[in-house]
Amino acid sequence: MKILLDISFLGTLYRGYQVQPNAKTVQGELTRAAKELFGFDCDIVGCSRTDSGVHAMHFMATINQKGSDGIVTAIALEKIPSALNFYLPTDITVNSALWVGDSFHPRYDVRNKEYIYKIWNGRNRNPFLQGRSWHYPRKIDDAALQKMNLAAQRFVGTYDFSAYMSANSNVKSTVRTIFSACVEREGDVISFRICGSGFLYNMVRIMMGTLIAVSENKITPDDIEAITQSKDRNRAGITAPAEGLYLNNVTY
Amino acid sequence: MKILLDISFLGTLYRGYQVQPNAKTVQGELTRAAKELFGFDCDIVGCSRTDSGVHAMHFMATINQKGSDGIVTAIALEKIPSALNFYLPTDITVNSALWVGDSFHPRYDVRNKEYIYKIWNGRNRNPFLQGRSWHYPRKIDDAALQKMNLAAQRFVGTYDFSAYMSANSNVKSTVRTIFSACVEREGDVISFRICGSGFLYNMVRIMMGTLIAVSENKITPDDIEAITQSKDRNRAGITAPAEGLYLNNVTY
Repeated sequence: MKILLDISFLGTLYRGYQVQPNAKTVQGELTRAAKELFGFDCDIVGCSRTDSGVHAMHFMATINQKGSDGIVTAIALEKIPSALNFYLPTDITVNSALWVGDSFHPRYDVRNKEYIYKIWNGRNRNPFLQGRSWHYPRKIDDAALQKMNLAAQRFVGTYDFSAYMSANSNVKSTVRTIFSACVEREGDVISFRICGSGFLYNMVRIMMGTLIAVSENKITPDDIEAITQSKDRNRAGITAPAEGLYLNNVTY
Repeated sequence: MKILLDISFLGTLYRGYQVQPNAKTVQGELTRAAKELFGFDCDIVGCSRTDSGVHAMHFMATINQKGSDGIVTAIALEKIPSALNFYLPTDITVNSALWVGDSFHPRYDVRNKEYIYKIWNGRNRNPFLQGRSWHYPRKIDDAALQKMNLAAQRFVGTYDFSAYMSANSNVKSTVRTIFSACVEREGDVISFRICGSGFLYNMVRIMMGTLIAVSENKITPDDIEAITQSKDRNRAGITAPAEGLYLNNVTY
């Protein structure tokens, strides 16, 4: 049996999730904390890579002992979150832990993932949302919001999404299924919420940039279909900054 | 005429609002930014002192030229927030600016102030609320919340609130009027919201500590009246940590 962890992290100070040489990463911190707690080397396998500065509300990762498919420990499962938290920095928290079978894979077994992208649409910057949202000061009115929402609906379905993928990503298939997508406002915070079977490199951030181009009347909601079909990255919008992106939920 | 600023700040990195020798303060940053913008020394007068680590959504402060009751500038009023923000660190933001008369005083002219105190009541810490809430992990259930809310109502009225004041504060009168007070829950975030004519040193934090004692059945809502009348700091609860406190609004 492996242990599946539900983790929250504020990504501001990390070079993303995935371990990299000479960089502070979330996986690096988890690997160190697991070794301190269990006393032996562990593999931490995450549900996805995340970019530098991206956040997560419920990131999922498994722990197994290095060289084994599972882990054996005398520590009671319900004590593991707070025990790991003791060794983790305060911007990473293990919320809960679960036993899963040796064959469970936190990335391959994902059924769907939900991301939220947050925009601070106030005229002046917001000290409480610095590094936690994209400050886009040009006022998005209700008409523009409605257009963004219409455009977001056009992402729903099974398509080749390579128009919304950054270069240098090495995937077999660029076809993904989007189950739902919407744009909501709460005060001056605008959230783009999207749920899908999986996401290409920078896909949510490029979709966000495309929706902003819709708010600016550079792209219409009806253009989305043609942009998707073109598979041409240059026809989509900019890549919105990492700091507004949150991995919100993962379902197995 | 003076300029009245509406300011938000994340207090985490500051030794409070008020200038102090050898410490980073919000007033210190504002004074420096005003000098850089206007090219002469300015007095920045705030609506209250705040403790180290306390936050503000709408802190009010005036600017006048040093040695004068007002300020003369060629910069258009509506440009002043973004112009000051250019010189301010990102955890302090000027939201808006207003002309007020020379005789206006941002502290003496306050009609009422609203504070919010935030508790993170999840079992494990929340990376997104570190330094922005008090992590109180013992579950506050609906019955306890209702008791806290009842107790909060007992703060409403005009009383000598010295039971809820830290020592070493040097005020003429310890009588204040509380207009409203309530405790609300949103998910695992519990907020104590209180509006009054003014507040004594640490008053909101000690009231919060007292409401937590109510949730723990150490104090009943009916005890509040006697605690207030006793004027005995030892009968009230602990001083809740600074990091959960937000000055939310000031009315003139």
